[in-house]
Amino acid sequence: MKLFNKVAIVGVGLIGGSIAQAIKKKGLAGEVVGVSRHKKTLLLAKRLKAIDRGSQDLNIIKGADLVILATPVDIIMNLAAKISTLVSKECIISDVGSTKQRIVSKLERIFPRYIGTHPLAGSEKRGIVNAQSDTFKGSLCIFTPTRYTDKKAQEKLRSLWTKLGAKLVILSPEIHDKILSFVSHLAHLAAFSLITTIPADYLKFASGGLKDTTRIAASDSELWADIFLSNQKYIVKAVTSFQENLGRIKSAINKRDKKLLIQILKKARVKRAALG
Amino acid sequence: MKLFNKVAIVGVGLIGGSIAQAIKKKGLAGEVVGVSRHKKTLLLAKRLKAIDRGSQDLNIIKGADLVILATPVDIIMNLAAKISTLVSKECIISDVGSTKQRIVSKLERIFPRYIGTHPLAGSEKRGIVNAQSDTFKGSLCIFTPTRYTDKKAQEKLRSLWTKLGAKLVILSPEIHDKILSFVSHLAHLAAFSLITTIPADYLKFASGGLKDTTRIAASDSELWADIFLSNQKYIVKAVTSFQENLGRIKSAINKRDKKLLIQILKKARVKRAALG
Repeated sequence: MKLFNKVAIVGVGLIGGSIAQAIKKKGLAGEVVGVSRHKKTLLLAKRLKAIDRGSQDLNIIKGADLVILATPVDIIMNLAAKISTLVSKECIISDVGSTKQRIVSKLERIFPRYIGTHPLAGSEKRGIVNAQSDTFKGSLCIFTPTRYTDKKAQEKLRSLWTKLGAKLVILSPEIHDKILSFVSHLAHLAAFSLITTIPADYLKFASGGLKDTTRIAASDSELWADIFLSNQKYIVKAVTSFQENLGRIKSAINKRDKKLLIQILKKARVKRAALG
Repeated sequence: MKLFNKVAIVGVGLIGGSIAQAIKKKGLAGEVVGVSRHKKTLLLAKRLKAIDRGSQDLNIIKGADLVILATPVDIIMNLAAKISTLVSKECIISDVGSTKQRIVSKLERIFPRYIGTHPLAGSEKRGIVNAQSDTFKGSLCIFTPTRYTDKKAQEKLRSLWTKLGAKLVILSPEIHDKILSFVSHLAHLAAFSLITTIPADYLKFASGGLKDTTRIAASDSELWADIFLSNQKYIVKAVTSFQENLGRIKSAINKRDKKLLIQILKKARVKRAALG
């Protein structure tokens, strides 16, 4: 069932590419066009049937009734003004950025029909080459509407994401950023720091545990620098709390307080085991 | 090919059980006996063909020409004296504890033919129920001989582990503990701390990244309290270094130093990507 006439995906990477592929596969749009800085990405996106047409020039989005911004946070912020000159007031604008407060407060001032979203389906893998039409099946997609959000636009976007297989959750941009600072941003920061800490010549002794624990440290550096900076306040708080918890275990080890140590570790084990 | 007449495995959990199962499957011993505190474990070990006979009483190890201690570090330390009254001077004694300095220095004084080992094949899974005869295939097994180590005993144990599929690496107990404090112990400590830091009601937003990063926090609490305390000096150093690296990223975020941030994250990404 067609929901849109022309969908434009700006940034045809893992997430943008997966959205494009799913929309085309399910026939949810008359046409899907893609924008990328790289010709090769557009070529690959066409071959993988993610887009019908692609261009390095933003003008290709003209006439779209849905534009999804799927670039890093910083670039979303930078492209907004230019995009607003290319689309009609009726066009629904959305983004899939990993932090929401800064983006939402800027974009909802520029676009009359904007709504922020964040599909929780990323990975350390990157690029259109890893895109899949079933990436969002069974995953969560967070919507961050505000009192300014156009309800009809939100309903239409809800239909889209539901058809992509996602379960929707509504959060305020602020609560989103607070929660994500823990469940995603802090985990990445910990992984980046952990691999940094390990002497390079010890890595040949790495077992599955270390590989699991640091897997997301292979994520894109610029993307994550952007995320960290765009959620500065909450991330700094989360890291501080993490440092304190590390300090607590270190202190128990220093004092050889086995009882306290077991108590901390057991609580952690139960909490983690419940995650599945 | 039979290498031993009677092998006794003290502690028939994931590692002990896997060793027992592999020895029996490959016919490397005339008989494999197991010791556990729990009757149920012994029953299961027999049903899974890991042991021929089992007992909660250490006396069952009498007459063994190889005894492998596969309990938590603390229990290895506590059982050593008792075991020395049950075995002959010819019996080869080994252990698979995760830290080596304290165990080796104690056990090599008690047993004339002792050699410390550490197969790097653990996981957050536990117990004989997860034991597999191919657990060690392609994994590393660290040997920590000293100048007191009986060379013939070492050679025989090397044959055993090679037949279990492990690649052997020789390290001093001290270097072993230093390396493991980073590649294993710190990773566990980070995972325990990270899951502790995340507010429980945020966990429903956990994605694959957080699950990977905290997977080993589901490991056994007493086992890990033991490991942390038995490698106190090096672990405290490793945690301190980790805290500093976290502080460095936090400070770059606080100062909004994007260039430095990207530089740190990129270095981490390259290092992690090389791990495979």
